[in-house]
This record gives sequence, C-alpha cells and structure tokens, in this order.
Amino acid sequence: MSFSAEIIAVGTEILLGEITNTDAVTVARALSELGINAYYQTVVGDNPERLRACILAAKKRADIIITTGGLGPTFDDLTKQVAAEAFGKKLVLHEESLKKIEIYFERRGKKMTDNNRAQAYLPEGCTVLENDWGTAPGCAIEDNGKFLIMLPGPPRECKPMVKYRMLPYLQKLSDSRLVSHGIHIYGMGESEVESKIRSFAEEMQNPTLAPYAKDGEVLLRVTGKAKTEEEADAITRPVIERVEEILGDVVYGVDVPSLHFAAFEILREKKLTLATAESCTGGLCSKLMTDIPGASEVFRGGICAYTNEIKMNLLGIDASLLETHGAVSRECAEALAKAACEKFGTDAGIGVTGYADPSSGDEKNPGGTVYVAVNICGKCTSSKIYQPQSRELARSRAAQECFDILRREAEKI
Amino acid sequence: MSFSAEIIAVGTEILLGEITNTDAVTVARALSELGINAYYQTVVGDNPERLRACILAAKKRADIIITTGGLGPTFDDLTKQVAAEAFGKKLVLHEESLKKIEIYFERRGKKMTDNNRAQAYLPEGCTVLENDWGTAPGCAIEDNGKFLIMLPGPPRECKPMVKYRMLPYLQKLSDSRLVSHGIHIYGMGESEVESKIRSFAEEMQNPTLAPYAKDGEVLLRVTGKAKTEEEADAITRPVIERVEEILGDVVYGVDVPSLHFAAFEILREKKLTLATAESCTGGLCSKLMTDIPGASEVFRGGICAYTNEIKMNLLGIDASLLETHGAVSRECAEALAKAACEKFGTDAGIGVTGYADPSSGDEKNPGGTVYVAVNICGKCTSSKIYQPQSRELARSRAAQECFDILRREAEKI
Repeated sequence: MSFSAEIIAVGTEILLGEITNTDAVTVARALSELGINAYYQTVVGDNPERLRACILAAKKRADIIITTGGLGPTFDDLTKQVAAEAFGKKLVLHEESLKKIEIYFERRGKKMTDNNRAQAYLPEGCTVLENDWGTAPGCAIEDNGKFLIMLPGPPRECKPMVKYRMLPYLQKLSDSRLVSHGIHIYGMGESEVESKIRSFAEEMQNPTLAPYAKDGEVLLRVTGKAKTEEEADAITRPVIERVEEILGDVVYGVDVPSLHFAAFEILREKKLTLATAESCTGGLCSKLMTDIPGASEVFRGGICAYTNEIKMNLLGIDASLLETHGAVSRECAEALAKAACEKFGTDAGIGVTGYADPSSGDEKNPGGTVYVAVNICGKCTSSKIYQPQSRELARSRAAQECFDILRREAEKI
Repeated sequence: MSFSAEIIAVGTEILLGEITNTDAVTVARALSELGINAYYQTVVGDNPERLRACILAAKKRADIIITTGGLGPTFDDLTKQVAAEAFGKKLVLHEESLKKIEIYFERRGKKMTDNNRAQAYLPEGCTVLENDWGTAPGCAIEDNGKFLIMLPGPPRECKPMVKYRMLPYLQKLSDSRLVSHGIHIYGMGESEVESKIRSFAEEMQNPTLAPYAKDGEVLLRVTGKAKTEEEADAITRPVIERVEEILGDVVYGVDVPSLHFAAFEILREKKLTLATAESCTGGLCSKLMTDIPGASEVFRGGICAYTNEIKMNLLGIDASLLETHGAVSRECAEALAKAACEKFGTDAGIGVTGYADPSSGDEKNPGGTVYVAVNICGKCTSSKIYQPQSRELARSRAAQECFDILRREAEKI
C-alpha cells in the first residue's frame, strides 16, 4: 500500500511573507520518513472559499491531507469548520478538550472567552489529537479511504504534534514500519560528507541515506523499512557503523539532539563539572547548557564579561594580558576558560572572546573573528573561527566550536 | 487596477522537507509591498505534468504567476519549458544570455557544458531578467493580461532578483502602494486583544488590521493602501494611535524587532546600564541582550548562578535568605537583581530564579514557576510566572517578563 499526501498550510501571514512556512518542512520530513510521497504543498489564506477549494482539490489527488494552522481561537481560524464540511462532518463539542482548555486558563488565572471555548468543537467521529503544547487540539478525520489531519500552526506546537500525534496515527495506516536514525556531524561540510559516502550510499535502496545541512552541521538520516520495527532498526545498524568508520570523529553522535547535548552527556558520564566565561557570545554557551533538563548535574554557572573591567574585576584577567594581546585574542580566551574553572570550582571551563559583529573588529581580527578555549582538568585547548556573514552566525559557530572541543577533550579524560 | 498573484516554487527537495521554501517569503513580502494580493502559494516537484497543472490552475485564478526554481542546468530543471508551453510560446536562443554564461565560465576557468547552454534558451518575446548573481537568467512572459515571472531558486540569487528585477517589472503594472506597520503587544492574549479591537477593526476596509500571535506576544499589523507611499502611511497613523489608546501600555512598541530590543532602546536613550543575575534562565537574558548589535552601550555583563553556593559566593546572596525563603522565591529574585547592580556597578539589574522544568518544583512552587525581578535606580519590581508546558517556554516567558518590567520601569526614570 502506497499513500500520497498533500500539505496545506492555512494562514494569511504566510501569504504576506510575514512568517516562513516551517511547519511544511516538519510535516514533509515526517512524511518522507514514512515513505509517503507528497506531490504538492499549498499555502492558502484565512479565507473559507479558497481553503475549501484547496481541500477539495487535494482530496481528489491525494490520499492523505495534512493541514497546519487555523485552529486557534480567533475569528479568522477556520480550518476545522471548512475541513469538516468538505468531509461531510458536523462540528460537535468535545468535552475532554473543553476541560483541558478550562484547566489551562484556570491555572494561569486568566479568563476564558467564548473564542477559546470554540477550540473544543471538533468534527464528529474524529480522532482527537491532544495538544499538550498549546490550547487548540488537532484531529484526524476519514472519509472513504481519504484522511485529513489537522495540526496547529505555531511551530512549537506543530513540531511535537507531528512527532507524537501525526506519526503514530499514520504508522497505523501503513503495513510496513520505518525506523530512522540521525548521524550528527560537526566540522565537515555537506559536499565533503557527500563525496565521502557517495559510492557507499548510491548502491543502497533500503535503508536509505540522506544528508541534510543545517546551521553549520550535517545530519545524515538513515531510514530502514521492514515489516517490524525491530527488523527495520536492524538493517540500519551496519550502515551507521560504516558511516562512522568512513567519517571518523567528525561524527559527534547518533540520535542526539545537539552538539552541546553530546558534550553534556560525556561530562555527565565522567562526572565532570563545567562553567563558562563569555564575552562576545554573551551567555549563549551557558544558555545552551541550561536548555538541557538536568543541566545542574554538570553545569555550575557562568560569567558574561562584556567589558574589560568586568573581565579584570570579576574574572581576574590580568590587565597586562589585555594590554599585550588585546581582549580579542587566543590568550584572553584561554585565560577566560581557566578563570571559569577557578571562579566556579569546576573541572572544565569555556572561554569565548571575539568580534561577533561584521561591522566591528580591527586589522588583525576583522569582524566575525572569535577565539574560543576549553580548559579541562588543567589542559587548555583553543581555536579560532571566522564567520563574517552575521553577528548571529559568528556567535552560534563560536558556541558550537566550544562544545565540539569540549566533547573531544572530555572523551580523553 | 488590482492584481492578484500566485507563487509556485518548483523543487522536489522542498517537498521532501530537505530545504525550507524561503523564496516564497521573499516573493510574498515584495508582492505585499506592492499591494498585490497573493491568494495561494504552491510547491510542486520537478515533474512536468504536475508543474503544468499548477501553472494552468494558477493562470485561471491569478493575474500574475511567480515561479521560483527549476531554471538550472540539470535535467530536472523544467520550469522554462513547461511555463513557455502553458503560455503558448516556443523557447528560442537568447544570444546575450548565452554570451553572459560563456563569460561566466571563462572567468572561472571552467568548461561550459551543453546543459549550461540550455539555460540561454528563453520563451520567445519574453522580457529577460538578467541574473547577475548566478548563471540562469530569469524572464517574464505575458499572454492576454496574464503575467508569468520566472526566478531562479537558490535564495542568494532569488533575493536580489526579486528586488532588482521582479519589483521594477511589477511596479510598472501597479498603480497603488502599500505601507504596513506592526504594533507589538506583550501581556495580553490574542483573543483578548481581538475582542478589544473587534468593533473597531471590523468596520475597516483600508487600512486593514490583522492580529498574529507569536511566542507569547501579539502583533497587530496595520496595512494601508493608496496611490503613494506617503498617503498609504498617513492613513495607518490614526489607526495606530487608536489601537494604542484602546490597548494602553501592553503595546511595547511599533515596528520594533523584539521586547528586549524595546527595553534596550529605552535604557540606551536614558543612558542607563544593565547587568543580569540568572538562575533558571541560565544566561538567556544576557544572551538576548547581546543579540543586539551595540549591546555594550547598555549591557555590562551577567552572572549565571546555577547553584546555591554560586549565588552566595559570587553574588553575595545571604544564606539565611536562601534558608528562609528558598532559592525559588520572590525574595531571592529581588536579591539577585540587586546583586547584579552591585557586582557590575550598573543602574539596572535583572534577577531570575525558578523551576523551569515541568518535572521539577515542589508543592509551593510547581515546575514552571519562575520569579523575576528588576532593580532599577534603587526600586525593585518583581513578578511571578507559571508556564508548566515546557522548560523552553518557562524560560523564554521569564525573560520576556523581565524585559517587560524593565521597559516599563525604565520609562519612569
């Protein structure tokens, strides 16, 4: 059985170019992983006639329609009404969803309006897709072998809804199981990764191996298809091993959420503690560490020293070092990393200093130059990055570089 | 004369979720600026039949079709052939484009293949849109008052092509201009905002007023249409004033990039300096401040104190305070905000402490409870938030709350 699907995003703000349709990427990837072909994506505004036309056209040419957006409480949120009508269903009150919404407002001490109540009306006979990440529930309806799944529009709701609601729902329709693993790579570009694995990847049919470049990293997705999850998983394993052999230690993890998480995990396993001393990244490294639930097992804290005075007074950086080498220097980054260890009494310390802004910098260190250092159990390792495209990029690459050094050096302890 | 437009992105990699359709955002924004309504966006793969169907459907319902992608030299780049056919045109060799492509390859010392030569074949009678940012030229064709504009897919080519080729081409067709302003709101939900402005918004035709909810904030977009930009802008002004009157001080700015930027701007204007002392937000507030180019005008630095020891040793928080009230308390948040001012010698200080993780917390302060405080010129203001959905949300709302208090309190100085 092979299904085709179509994604419809509902929202005038996408048509106006105010927001990027990232939900389509989330849904499209999930469909890809399931081996479901999507031949079209459509974006339509908050307009009932045009939305109806889109849904009816999609119903003709696809088996599965996924809509994102238009489930909220405001008058322009029309997806449920229009979709239900197109599938010949009425909207009825779903008591459980209403209760969830009531509790949501009660807990926040806010008043629930009639608009919010409207979110609990769902097509009769639908499968409710509970939304634990917002107020508007999703739902799935079926009509003569055609399926329509409605997901909320805000990406932070849509993402988990795709993973925990849409995927399991669609899995049930298929007689094969897909298992997918992500091989995470930092420190090698997409084309180099691709040319290294090309001869190996080209002959493969099942599992498949697909590269994605994102934010200075490369993700290789290995997807196996079989009758059971166990079998599907089993055929991916030799491929993962082979890729790790070919690429070596630029692979920082398999199925790990991020490079900083990989670093955190190694520190946790080895019972090593960490602190940060940041200048131009301004707290980004400590923010990333504390994104992780249970960060306190490893992370003690950090100092953001945005001026030379603070570097001297709070972190004890030598005035002579700053004078001789400048605040933007490898020496200063190393001194910061060591100071972090001392001030917070940790095994490992991160130090970052640089000119993040493209318009900043001097002759020796043009804008986009950042020095990073990691001090761990008395050994200090440093690196220099140059990302003159944007402030954001220079800062995020600097943080990635820190965590890459950290995971490599912690591994050796 | 009022045109409608439709955007068609051509590329299987978008359907697979491998890349995000950012070209659609670029084109959509440009159309918005011109006051051209776009009612649909479509994504279709590198498949001639489906692409033809999309173009023919678009030709029926829109005056202007913009395609992105599929102009390259590889065998799956089919847009020109299919679009020319749908508009009843032949492809003919465009000598100038061929010369440009030849020069492009000559300069790079690369060999030109027949595929590259194919890029110089364009629909007969078209307006060539020269591509100074890549090899594939764009073009525009017309048929009985219907227009089709083809742009290259790579965003770094598409962006300048939209600005320097598509916009001037379309300007000639349109006789109206649009001006749009964003009114930014924090501290009032979308449905409450909407119910407050509904009676006022519903009767409006021009300008239009549309609400968007995003990341705990609401954006009201006011868009005016007129013969000139000045006139279009002028009709939005009374609407902005009226909305500000109705909503009061939950409006934190008009056309500002973010809440923390609004806070930064007020501090900068008043020449006030800022430091942070963060526990559960782990450096998020200082990271957000330093996202801003020129942050050093206001921001001195911050301490992330992730343990009680660090709170005591580095920030001088009383052991007795921690014992009596606990680290997660309003008292601790206030002490942190004051300590930030003292340690960094600043006018203003932010203090944050809480249980960000939904699974953390105790009876008094369940997971998702965060206390924030702002100390400014000796006056301390605090607040409590409760966001049990996710760690990420609790942290980002806590930071927003800080910056909202900060901008309100700084305003009074």
